[in-house]
Amino acid sequence: MLEELKEKVYRANLKLVEYGLVVLTWGNVSAIDRENRLFVIKPSGVPYENMTADDMVVMDLNGNKIEGRLNPSSDTPTHLALYKSFSDIGAIVHTHSSWACSWAQAGRDIPAYGTTHADFANGAVPCARGLTAEEVIGEYEFNTGKVIVEEFEKRGISPNECPAVLVHRHGPFAWGKDPFGATQNALILEEVAKMASRTERIAAVSKNADIGIEQYLLDKHYQRKHGKNAYYGQNK
Amino acid sequence: MLEELKEKVYRANLKLVEYGLVVLTWGNVSAIDRENRLFVIKPSGVPYENMTADDMVVMDLNGNKIEGRLNPSSDTPTHLALYKSFSDIGAIVHTHSSWACSWAQAGRDIPAYGTTHADFANGAVPCARGLTAEEVIGEYEFNTGKVIVEEFEKRGISPNECPAVLVHRHGPFAWGKDPFGATQNALILEEVAKMASRTERIAAVSKNADIGIEQYLLDKHYQRKHGKNAYYGQNK
Amino acid sequence: MLEELKEKVYRANLKLVEYGLVVLTWGNVSAIDRENRLFVIKPSGVPYENMTADDMVVMDLNGNKIEGRLNPSSDTPTHLALYKSFSDIGAIVHTHSSWACSWAQAGRDIPAYGTTHADFANGAVPCARGLTAEEVIGEYEFNTGKVIVEEFEKRGISPNECPAVLVHRHGPFAWGKDPFGATQNALILEEVAKMASRTERIAAVSKNADIGIEQYLLDKHYQRKHGKNAYYGQNK
Amino acid sequence: MLEELKEKVYRANLKLVEYGLVVLTWGNVSAIDRENRLFVIKPSGVPYENMTADDMVVMDLNGNKIEGRLNPSSDTPTHLALYKSFSDIGAIVHTHSSWACSWAQAGRDIPAYGTTHADFANGAVPCARGLTAEEVIGEYEFNTGKVIVEEFEKRGISPNECPAVLVHRHGPFAWGKDPFGATQNALILEEVAKMASRTERIAAVSKNADIGIEQYLLDKHYQRKHGKNAYYGQNK
Repeated sequence: MLEELKEKVYRANLKLVEYGLVVLTWGNVSAIDRENRLFVIKPSGVPYENMTADDMVVMDLNGNKIEGRLNPSSDTPTHLALYKSFSDIGAIVHTHSSWACSWAQAGRDIPAYGTTHADFANGAVPCARGLTAEEVIGEYEFNTGKVIVEEFEKRGISPNECPAVLVHRHGPFAWGKDPFGATQNALILEEVAKMASRTERIAAVSKNADIGIEQYLLDKHYQRKHGKNAYYGQNK
Repeated sequence: MLEELKEKVYRANLKLVEYGLVVLTWGNVSAIDRENRLFVIKPSGVPYENMTADDMVVMDLNGNKIEGRLNPSSDTPTHLALYKSFSDIGAIVHTHSSWACSWAQAGRDIPAYGTTHADFANGAVPCARGLTAEEVIGEYEFNTGKVIVEEFEKRGISPNECPAVLVHRHGPFAWGKDPFGATQNALILEEVAKMASRTERIAAVSKNADIGIEQYLLDKHYQRKHGKNAYYGQNK
Repeated sequence: MLEELKEKVYRANLKLVEYGLVVLTWGNVSAIDRENRLFVIKPSGVPYENMTADDMVVMDLNGNKIEGRLNPSSDTPTHLALYKSFSDIGAIVHTHSSWACSWAQAGRDIPAYGTTHADFANGAVPCARGLTAEEVIGEYEFNTGKVIVEEFEKRGISPNECPAVLVHRHGPFAWGKDPFGATQNALILEEVAKMASRTERIAAVSKNADIGIEQYLLDKHYQRKHGKNAYYGQNK
Repeated sequence: MLEELKEKVYRANLKLVEYGLVVLTWGNVSAIDRENRLFVIKPSGVPYENMTADDMVVMDLNGNKIEGRLNPSSDTPTHLALYKSFSDIGAIVHTHSSWACSWAQAGRDIPAYGTTHADFANGAVPCARGLTAEEVIGEYEFNTGKVIVEEFEKRGISPNECPAVLVHRHGPFAWGKDPFGATQNALILEEVAKMASRTERIAAVSKNADIGIEQYLLDKHYQRKHGKNAYYGQNK
């Protein structure tokens, strides 16, 4: 079942390798079929080079495995929690990409320092609060998703405006309309995370340097790409 | 029309990928036919791997599309503004290469710290002033070019002496006689930007370290490569 | 003799190149046959591209060469010392990978800053104490192993809980059940070392940033992957 | 003439590309035939991908071109000065590799921080003094070599003990017995330069970290690889 979606999720997982976002098996892509309320996800701990489209696991939104010989990614409950609350998203990517993880480990939001960021997200990429001991000891992976959703609600950010988040002490989740879009967002997040740290380092040398994109420039770039009157790219 | 120039612009765009200067579709090359007052530019948001020479768009200097099925790069008005004012340049490259963008986001000129820089530019690579809210809300992309030209005029720098600029909070533009020269200048800029930040980091550790190339050494290197009596390379 | 183990050790040595962990000949993998009390190790200073499985050297646990035309790695006595004291390990990797060496040269433990680390080791990766002049002038390579073992004993860490160590002013050793597992641990160590330094750099910019993973989160990640009730990956 | 040496110099130049030490045409390798008092060097500004062994230029020790259609590297007089004074060396490499150049631009010696360094050089890699205005305006490239030789003499270092140097505000020169050895030394220098800066960065975070290899450990590593009783590698 869902053979086409399995094939897409499989190929998007391989994109993580091509994009240099994963080491060993440290990443997973999933995608949802909203009509059938089922999602497809990478199996846990399987090397990308041996994997086939057929190894993808089909899950329902109650966390039951519907199809697949292998165990789904251990992060599956996080994906599930996000699909339930972020009703517009069609695919999710989790990686341990180095720069994004480093911001997450430092517990900092990635500030919007320039137009590369503004083309991607309408403000800082949030680092969600850390999980409590109870949340970790309990349904850890599901609670990870819950805390992400809570952070977006608390800050009043829509997942459409910011297609990624940092999980405290852990690393990034990114999403999109489909598996390839989500994977590209994971790549952009890593680039933006790298550039933000370099920006801080370069600015620190000069007393006169100030950083942080102006609101009007942030709006301009975000809107020209994602707004109603977007004029970046080709007509859809 | 301009089939040869389209082919060159197309291949120079692919060089950006080979040089590691672009992520996804974040870069564009254009080149001008001065005689016919037409320039050729990459289409907007098209992945490099699917692109053909035939996808290149032909524009006139009033901003009208003369030929091409696709929309030109959204940065086209910036290219246009530069072609109008910098009458010696034959090609322009825009990227979001990481180190150059980081200097641009920090709002700093890239200082001339050594001979790698001096072989490239006759002084610091300027970071142009930020655009005002009015300039951003108005003809944003054209104003980006206008501000670059204004910066070179204000500082009394010729675009021949410094084949690149940083746009504040945004990233680099580089230029040259032809698409391959301009692309090489974009690559050199990224190398110089990386080396400059590393130089500052290494110098900061030692109280005795001073940085900044001596004027006579800057002149020597710039002139031996670009001056009247240049002796670097082969006889043309 | 031990042809199968030689083949594995040979291929694991090539993995070091594929993983980007070695420059020139700066790395070596060994593996032990506990039943026969013999271990197989890379020959000293032989380029990876010319090496064959047949070039691997067989040693006994008294440091005698049992088979092989070539000299074993100059680090052989360190491997030997570790095999003698760490009775559960099946393979050892030594590299001069850049980030791990930089922590070793700074003489610092790599702190556990996030879940990437917690998936790997149950606490900081120790930097062993420096060798004394006597230890260096004497049986230097064997003493290197002795000091590693001493460090684990002093700190009460089991080599099963932390599959790697830093040798002061020198670089990393990693181990595992078999040559491929040990090689993956060397790769993970390098990623964790890189991420830890980037985390410190990003945290240093903000007064409010605190770093260091919470004990309950460290335990959770370490146990879900390595504990009795581990649920990461596929059923063995 | 010297066809075999030309072939070696040609192939060593290509190694610079393989090792990631050069951008565009920024590097050159030469080698000397001491018996005939002639050396072979890369032509100036020729891209590596178009170059053939036949393009190599033959020079005598008075700076006369003896054979070759193309101009020799503009750095030829520096090579010549080094061959004249460093009578044991057989080949020279110049690059603008990023980390080594960054130390050169900061005007700092690369300190010996660990055993990777000690395997390479018997102490810090010197950054030679800057050239005076007169030295730059005069025989600039020859004076560059003169200043290097002067620095080694002043410090009492033999070029056998330290196979590389940094030229102030410029970049590295490395040497060796033959073109491949010299090229490997250029690669090691870049690795050591990178590791040294990372070491300083990691040490700076902790009040208790001290850096700088102990003399007895430096001696041990240098001697086990390069001393009379060296035991690293295979018997020659």
